[in-house]
Amino acid sequence: MTLASDRHHPDSARAEHRRRQVLEAAEQCFRRRGFHGASMADISKAAGMSAGHIYNYFDNKEAIIAAFVQCKVERVSAIMRDLDSHADPLQALLDGMDEYVRKAVEDDDHKIPLEIFAEAARNPAIHAMLCAADAHTRGQFQDIVCRARERRGLSVDRAVIGGRVAALIAMFEGLHLRVLQHPQLMQRGMADALRTAAAPLLLND
Amino acid sequence: MTLASDRHHPDSARAEHRRRQVLEAAEQCFRRRGFHGASMADISKAAGMSAGHIYNYFDNKEAIIAAFVQCKVERVSAIMRDLDSHADPLQALLDGMDEYVRKAVEDDDHKIPLEIFAEAARNPAIHAMLCAADAHTRGQFQDIVCRARERRGLSVDRAVIGGRVAALIAMFEGLHLRVLQHPQLMQRGMADALRTAAAPLLLND
Repeated sequence: MTLASDRHHPDSARAEHRRRQVLEAAEQCFRRRGFHGASMADISKAAGMSAGHIYNYFDNKEAIIAAFVQCKVERVSAIMRDLDSHADPLQALLDGMDEYVRKAVEDDDHKIPLEIFAEAARNPAIHAMLCAADAHTRGQFQDIVCRARERRGLSVDRAVIGGRVAALIAMFEGLHLRVLQHPQLMQRGMADALRTAAAPLLLND
Repeated sequence: MTLASDRHHPDSARAEHRRRQVLEAAEQCFRRRGFHGASMADISKAAGMSAGHIYNYFDNKEAIIAAFVQCKVERVSAIMRDLDSHADPLQALLDGMDEYVRKAVEDDDHKIPLEIFAEAARNPAIHAMLCAADAHTRGQFQDIVCRARERRGLSVDRAVIGGRVAALIAMFEGLHLRVLQHPQLMQRGMADALRTAAAPLLLND
């Protein structure tokens, strides 16, 4: 398969494989040097490609960040589908807190999101893409919480639930900042505390 | 006053004024280009100084970040002192939630912290300084919560309160990520929700 055929069949398995290679290389480069510090030339070098070849897959660094944001949307959507598959998603969320904290502490996946947040604060295109992704996953979460509350016979005022969902997301996102700054964080104590805070958000009328 | 006298009297008002000029210029440069994208030459230019002069005040960009982290410690310590001056700091914290959310939404001060978080994820020296600052302010917060709970006759298990304080900080820090990603955030709904989540963390036995 040649370069030209990659270009003509961008959805081919080979093209997809190369696209992933670029994303993995970009992740390494961004972790090491940050979004501004890493050039497209650095990324293509890390991916073992010629500098020109990389542009078959991504027009620029913004397009690479867009792919990272899209990956995050898909990951969060999978978590939402899993939550929604439970008979009682509200209880499932509370029961899953230990596992959520354990993953946040053990995974090393907060670096790229932090890089994207910092870049979004300076780059309007990335800011817009982050806001759109957030609106999408926030809407999914809010729908699940509202349906689950209806089934329990709890009030469903969209403005109130909107605020509560935003507070829950703030806690979950803030957890990654805690893990970064507080490496000796006690997983058990943190999970218990998050449950204590989340329970009234989910279950109070 | 000459360069040499600045150097010999680094604590003089003139030196302090110049130091602040450098920090303001650095903040602008980091906002625009990120920590890695901004060079010491860029910062000295933005501060209206010669490239060599800036090294009288800061040895490198890490030293500038250290000064930002120190400023944040002082700002948070002032908030803690204010909280501690109330007869009931726990109620004061809950009552102050609307004001806290309003400030987070209106201020544009989340950009530099995001830049520092991203850099801390790649730079061990900055990571260490952020962790030390966090341990300091977290300790202050925990002491205030413990003393206030004792006065109310509530249990004071350091492990439990440690987890709860960490959850509260996660919410407060996460709020800045919410403001970034959700510009139409309803201040009132968010403040009510944060109060709903914080009340059991502060007041439950």
